[in-house]
Amino acid sequence: MNLPPDEATVSSRVQTFADGTPDRDRIDCIAVEAPLEVRIGGKPVTVLMRTPGHDEELVRGFLFSEGIIARPGDIVSMERPAGLADAQRGNVIAVQLVPSRAGLGTDRLFYSSSSCGACGKKTIASLEVRGTVSDSPLRVQRHVLAGLPGRLKSAQPTFAMTGGVHASGLFTAHGEFVAVREDVGRHNALDKLIGWALAAGKIPLADHILLVSGRVSYELVQKAVVASLPLIAAVGAPSSLAIELAERFNITLVGFLRSDTMNVYAAASRVLG
Amino acid sequence: MNLPPDEATVSSRVQTFADGTPDRDRIDCIAVEAPLEVRIGGKPVTVLMRTPGHDEELVRGFLFSEGIIARPGDIVSMERPAGLADAQRGNVIAVQLVPSRAGLGTDRLFYSSSSCGACGKKTIASLEVRGTVSDSPLRVQRHVLAGLPGRLKSAQPTFAMTGGVHASGLFTAHGEFVAVREDVGRHNALDKLIGWALAAGKIPLADHILLVSGRVSYELVQKAVVASLPLIAAVGAPSSLAIELAERFNITLVGFLRSDTMNVYAAASRVLG
Repeated sequence: MNLPPDEATVSSRVQTFADGTPDRDRIDCIAVEAPLEVRIGGKPVTVLMRTPGHDEELVRGFLFSEGIIARPGDIVSMERPAGLADAQRGNVIAVQLVPSRAGLGTDRLFYSSSSCGACGKKTIASLEVRGTVSDSPLRVQRHVLAGLPGRLKSAQPTFAMTGGVHASGLFTAHGEFVAVREDVGRHNALDKLIGWALAAGKIPLADHILLVSGRVSYELVQKAVVASLPLIAAVGAPSSLAIELAERFNITLVGFLRSDTMNVYAAASRVLG
Repeated sequence: MNLPPDEATVSSRVQTFADGTPDRDRIDCIAVEAPLEVRIGGKPVTVLMRTPGHDEELVRGFLFSEGIIARPGDIVSMERPAGLADAQRGNVIAVQLVPSRAGLGTDRLFYSSSSCGACGKKTIASLEVRGTVSDSPLRVQRHVLAGLPGRLKSAQPTFAMTGGVHASGLFTAHGEFVAVREDVGRHNALDKLIGWALAAGKIPLADHILLVSGRVSYELVQKAVVASLPLIAAVGAPSSLAIELAERFNITLVGFLRSDTMNVYAAASRVLG
């Protein structure tokens, strides 16, 4: 099994009560949730409640999903500010953007700081999604989709240890595993994955499949649109707005994905026999 | 079975593929996710991505959880603004606060608008939780806790129809069902429940049990602190910060609650036998 980042889990004393067995006082492994303060040009713009580890990917993916940066080079530097206590230092990231993005970045986030796509935004008008309708020719065999949840689970080290995190996984059209990121926040897990893909030069992700461990809401489809993902599969249910957004951008949306059954809610033509 | 609010679900065409059965093109019931713009004194302060229904409770609970109001009377009026198109009208709520709260409300939300307790906040310092350490004498028998998830599920009309919403349920120390609220956002489900309790004169909730359908993170414990809830039980896992906050405020935290087993992460003395 892969190991999660050191800082992603902690040990905690727990009392377990189970019928028919003596009570047990034991040490359990817990998924860490900690605030990450993001500063742009020295100014705090948002706090992301995240699982530590892959912080730079998270910030890069978040800024990309929010339309603050368009390419990796828009970030001049990303660092832990000096002069903070050690405990705080790990939970602050200071970003410098190129001049053409700097004003935009700070102002936009100031008015619509959000780690979850919608909350934090102040008006319904600010929810407008910027993106293009997918014309990806990607096609996926049904049996390939059916095998993905098992592959995702076996690639989730933090979930295996804690049972307490969401995951976003990237696969090829043939079902080959590409990458996975985990987080207590499902929007963060996807931002980490997108931040990784952006640095790796893999965006647009028009020939990839995204699999998420939970439900699919507006926020996740919005991020998928920005990353040009043509197919989102989820173990859980979609919301009404997720379906609307997927239809509008011609993104295939699969829900309740199991080894023997699945529902297709939008752009079903990409799912083959 | 109870029925959910009319506006909480919609019908959507879905293709279901299942091994061994012919493909089916059918109508599925989907949980609605839609933006609710909250205005205070005419000024938009936040957007909550919520499942429609119990909107007034949601806004009241949100404002209470965020410390903007301290009692129901701090809200002078809550209404759907005139002069908007019908579709938009349902998704905007205009709140008037008493003068002593009005400035506080708008300013605080302006800088820390948040539907999920943390995201939207701009600095780690703004995460500070205002509340008092619980001295509730509440005690609960283990077998009472074990029976709660089944009771919650049978009281969830929207989940029964869609499989796509979270729930927060309120119970007495003897396991009697008091109330449940559902939402695509788990923070919203709890805010709706707290907003209901506030209007019903039931806060502080020091003699009640809160059961949530998913995992427990910082945001849910923070709201429980503000509502003086002494015990949070969850079907899923807690995060590290949820445990820290529960310990600090002497709130009993139960996770992975099943009919035959449970873990107690904080203030275990309230769980008996």
